[in-house]
Amino acid sequence: MGIETISSRRNRFILRLRRLGTEPAFRREEREYLCDGMKLLKEAVGKGAKICSVLWKERPETVEGLNCPWQYAAPAELFDYASPMKNSPGPIFTVAMERDGKEGRLGNALVLETIQDPGNVGTVLRTAKAMDIDAVILTGDCADIYSPKAVRASMGAIFRQRVIYAERDELRQLADSNGLKLYAAALSDKAEDIRGLSMKRAAVCIGSEGQGLSRELIELCDGEVIIPMAPGSESLNAAVAAAIIMWEMQR
Amino acid sequence: MGIETISSRRNRFILRLRRLGTEPAFRREEREYLCDGMKLLKEAVGKGAKICSVLWKERPETVEGLNCPWQYAAPAELFDYASPMKNSPGPIFTVAMERDGKEGRLGNALVLETIQDPGNVGTVLRTAKAMDIDAVILTGDCADIYSPKAVRASMGAIFRQRVIYAERDELRQLADSNGLKLYAAALSDKAEDIRGLSMKRAAVCIGSEGQGLSRELIELCDGEVIIPMAPGSESLNAAVAAAIIMWEMQR
Repeated sequence: MGIETISSRRNRFILRLRRLGTEPAFRREEREYLCDGMKLLKEAVGKGAKICSVLWKERPETVEGLNCPWQYAAPAELFDYASPMKNSPGPIFTVAMERDGKEGRLGNALVLETIQDPGNVGTVLRTAKAMDIDAVILTGDCADIYSPKAVRASMGAIFRQRVIYAERDELRQLADSNGLKLYAAALSDKAEDIRGLSMKRAAVCIGSEGQGLSRELIELCDGEVIIPMAPGSESLNAAVAAAIIMWEMQR
Repeated sequence: MGIETISSRRNRFILRLRRLGTEPAFRREEREYLCDGMKLLKEAVGKGAKICSVLWKERPETVEGLNCPWQYAAPAELFDYASPMKNSPGPIFTVAMERDGKEGRLGNALVLETIQDPGNVGTVLRTAKAMDIDAVILTGDCADIYSPKAVRASMGAIFRQRVIYAERDELRQLADSNGLKLYAAALSDKAEDIRGLSMKRAAVCIGSEGQGLSRELIELCDGEVIIPMAPGSESLNAAVAAAIIMWEMQR
């Protein structure tokens, strides 16, 4: 069975890929997101992600286990038009979003509030998977975890890491119903050194680098924690702070 | 004393800024690098960095303690032409490179081999400063620490963190003369869990995400260390791996 080659920018499949690559609202509506590259495609197949469609750059390739009827090819120029990445060697493909991960028990979690850099959000997902953290909870105005940059930074963790979207008050409920302490990572005087604290059954909240956590979220928490730093250093990159906290949660 | 406004793209100062922003070899030759933004400028002044020149976007502003005779202003369009950043609110300014940090004792160090993402290199510098690591040593083909992206990611650590450039064999000498163990972060079977190891007086080497450390560098080391990860996870972002190792070095 041959794979059809698309030649027009007005092709509906091409237009749909472009929207999935650039419009967060359209992604949510379609419950589908766009991924890039052969490595990620193999990882998606290996992890059993539902692959909805594939666009190959110039020539289709064979991927063992890939069972997707909606495959197309496009000449380089048209492929580049469809792809959100510059100079991607291809392919791009779309994956069905998992259902929100609210159901099921949580032994621990990392909470991100209004982390707007998609690379940081994706990196946190990747680290959470490696550190065996049950879920990453997004609250406030975080970057879309399904944006191409976040997906790429997640290095395949997007296919496996449980993600939960929660408003602030849901967050408190989630912590309570799972018996988790809710901690705010903050720079205040009353924050406790993470090295002296048991965070085995905890959800720890991290805020944006510029603003930190919102006052409202801090007030919702059971306590504040701090990563001790050398004098003169005021902050860490958000993905770095998250990594050190997740490392301590399971250390 | 007024600040001169430049109006031509052929102005030599503008051309020089463009080269400092884009040409690593020119930066090395001039021993000067380009920084962006008011926050960084205040930080540079505060840390006593030698500020060689400033270009303001449209209107100069007053910065307490800034004592630089080479200040100019440029209309927005010309400023954007000179700046390597898109839509920077300005100013851009140039700073004299510190001398290579080889002289002086080292109690510990983090070594990066061929980390090519400038954001990662800058983030490692920032984390090293916060974790009180004596020096970041760059070997192999790392991204230029003085590139605008690395400088930005360092969040001011570029003005304060000791950086050393070393070839592989110099690295061994540096470790020996300072009485440091040299460890390779690797994924091999003989690598020791970082949690069980004293890394108080150590230099730990981190390689690129794609390639890992070179065989030659691993063979130079006294031992291999590993950050334990959940099954199915193969790697961490390089800046995240570096952060967890530096955290353990001083924990």
